[in-house]
Amino acid sequence: MNATKPLIALTLGDICGIGPEITLKAVEDARVQAGCRILAVGCPAALERAKGFTGSALTIHAVERPEDALYAPGTLDVLDVGDIDIDKAPIATVCREGGRSAFIAVREAIALAMADKVDATVTNPLNKEAMNLAGYHYAGHTEIYAEYTGTKHYSMMLADGDLRVIHVSTHVSLREACDRVKRQRVLEVIRLAHDACKQLGIAQPVVGVAGLNPHCGEGGLFGREEIEEIEPAIRQAQAEGIRAEGPVPPDTVFSKACGGWYDIVVAMYHDQGHIPLKVLGFQYDRELRRWKSVRGVNITLGLPIIRVAVDHGTAFDQVGKNTASCDSLINAIDYAARFAAQRKR
Amino acid sequence: MNATKPLIALTLGDICGIGPEITLKAVEDARVQAGCRILAVGCPAALERAKGFTGSALTIHAVERPEDALYAPGTLDVLDVGDIDIDKAPIATVCREGGRSAFIAVREAIALAMADKVDATVTNPLNKEAMNLAGYHYAGHTEIYAEYTGTKHYSMMLADGDLRVIHVSTHVSLREACDRVKRQRVLEVIRLAHDACKQLGIAQPVVGVAGLNPHCGEGGLFGREEIEEIEPAIRQAQAEGIRAEGPVPPDTVFSKACGGWYDIVVAMYHDQGHIPLKVLGFQYDRELRRWKSVRGVNITLGLPIIRVAVDHGTAFDQVGKNTASCDSLINAIDYAARFAAQRKR
Repeated sequence: MNATKPLIALTLGDICGIGPEITLKAVEDARVQAGCRILAVGCPAALERAKGFTGSALTIHAVERPEDALYAPGTLDVLDVGDIDIDKAPIATVCREGGRSAFIAVREAIALAMADKVDATVTNPLNKEAMNLAGYHYAGHTEIYAEYTGTKHYSMMLADGDLRVIHVSTHVSLREACDRVKRQRVLEVIRLAHDACKQLGIAQPVVGVAGLNPHCGEGGLFGREEIEEIEPAIRQAQAEGIRAEGPVPPDTVFSKACGGWYDIVVAMYHDQGHIPLKVLGFQYDRELRRWKSVRGVNITLGLPIIRVAVDHGTAFDQVGKNTASCDSLINAIDYAARFAAQRKR
Repeated sequence: MNATKPLIALTLGDICGIGPEITLKAVEDARVQAGCRILAVGCPAALERAKGFTGSALTIHAVERPEDALYAPGTLDVLDVGDIDIDKAPIATVCREGGRSAFIAVREAIALAMADKVDATVTNPLNKEAMNLAGYHYAGHTEIYAEYTGTKHYSMMLADGDLRVIHVSTHVSLREACDRVKRQRVLEVIRLAHDACKQLGIAQPVVGVAGLNPHCGEGGLFGREEIEEIEPAIRQAQAEGIRAEGPVPPDTVFSKACGGWYDIVVAMYHDQGHIPLKVLGFQYDRELRRWKSVRGVNITLGLPIIRVAVDHGTAFDQVGKNTASCDSLINAIDYAARFAAQRKR
């Protein structure tokens, strides 16, 4: 045990989903073991059940306080949130108890981080419908974090390895997304992008700013947002000392980011950023007829605590089959550990 | 020599660019040699000059008619378009003679295909500015093909291996692209997609139709084009016997196509289709600091002849260095050969 390694609270998510089994797989990954200590948060019985699916030899060590955890090889410590009846939460079903298990674990993980008892939090997927059935009416994890940390302004960063993307807008129509490309908002997101990279330990981050229109509008020929909104925002960011570049044609900025040109890309709308990340991160195995890799992670910026999430759902169709990929979870833990290590300095 | 292999006219493009040297590399590729016969079209002296850059041992065999070509191993036949002064066309420069060389070669290749003397045409890149300097005022290759084949309605398909994409709109602003998502146009493009796959020999093509808005608008919550325009078009296509599926969320349709779900994707706007193709097809070598792979191809649908193009430019920064990738050109020749073989049946 190395007490200097960051301590990460990892929620099990909806225990009817793949959360418990990918947790067992991820914590045995060498990179995870080398980079941090893991405290699972949720229902210990769900991990015992998942051992039956994965054949994991880990000993599940239930604790009531982080101080009682062992962080020893061959052992997975789990903070028992209590009061979950696993018999009411059969696998692969949308149900109250599954939704309740997810919500209680998240609330607990946030409390631990706010009290400085852990260095970062990572979340397994929850099912929105189940959580609503349980009486918790949130759109998702992010809204729970915002409420329990008292945060008003936050933003989402997606990452897959060294490809990082932050969005000017997300869940609005494409027409409204065009309307939201305003210089003040673009500037705000460039600043967030810069700050996030600094928090990851990148000394002089280069921020690639995408255009909105094809070929960046070819000098105003088809679309003027680059000239009127994006370029002024970039110039202002540069005046503040940020290494912002662009606007870069939307269809090449991501290839260039993958090639090391940029540390992060500012995307102008949801799909501009999501398409490249999912094309790179979601790999399908044609022979086995299932996804073999699902890699991306989702980072909430602007919170007083560190929060990284997997970028996939509860995958009810895969629960209990030992087929679900833990790549995204490993990536999420790795990102959380990097943020935490940087913050500790 | 196998006379049953499709005969492909391959233009050299702007001879000041990378066309001649990637041509020398591509024709020695085993897949190209196995799948077709190549008749280069352009200036033989440009190929001789390019041999100095690549170290190619090919014998350049200039002919005045396709009938005089040898199609023999170790030899590259080139139809001499005459009247090009290589001394006026130094490498890596935008100049009249380079533009002229590109235009004349294309016009000749089109004439050969229209006269049924070749089975398909493939084009190396030209430089628009140089072509304009030479007095030929076209936006690009496609417009030359449209004029010289008397074609009014055509459409662009992009492909990288088995990932094929066809667009509802291309070079218009993103706002106008939203306006162009109309059921009649979407239906027209679904039909073109279906026909193109049939022409490639796919017996029962499955056409994946992307949505316009993130998450396809989540049932009208943010954007109604899926409900009002795209779904009706898909239903009409299905009624016509086309296996059209969707609308599929824009950020997953390409991952699924890569996984074999769809033979072709109908993209709603330029970047929706270009981003995934370029992210997958453009690979950057960080150590050598240059693009190591540039794979996509561009196919013009609706012409009376077959035309496939590389999906990159003249790359003046790479001419003469023997670093330019011929992957896209090999892919283009391969596609042209497949179309031609299917048409011959």
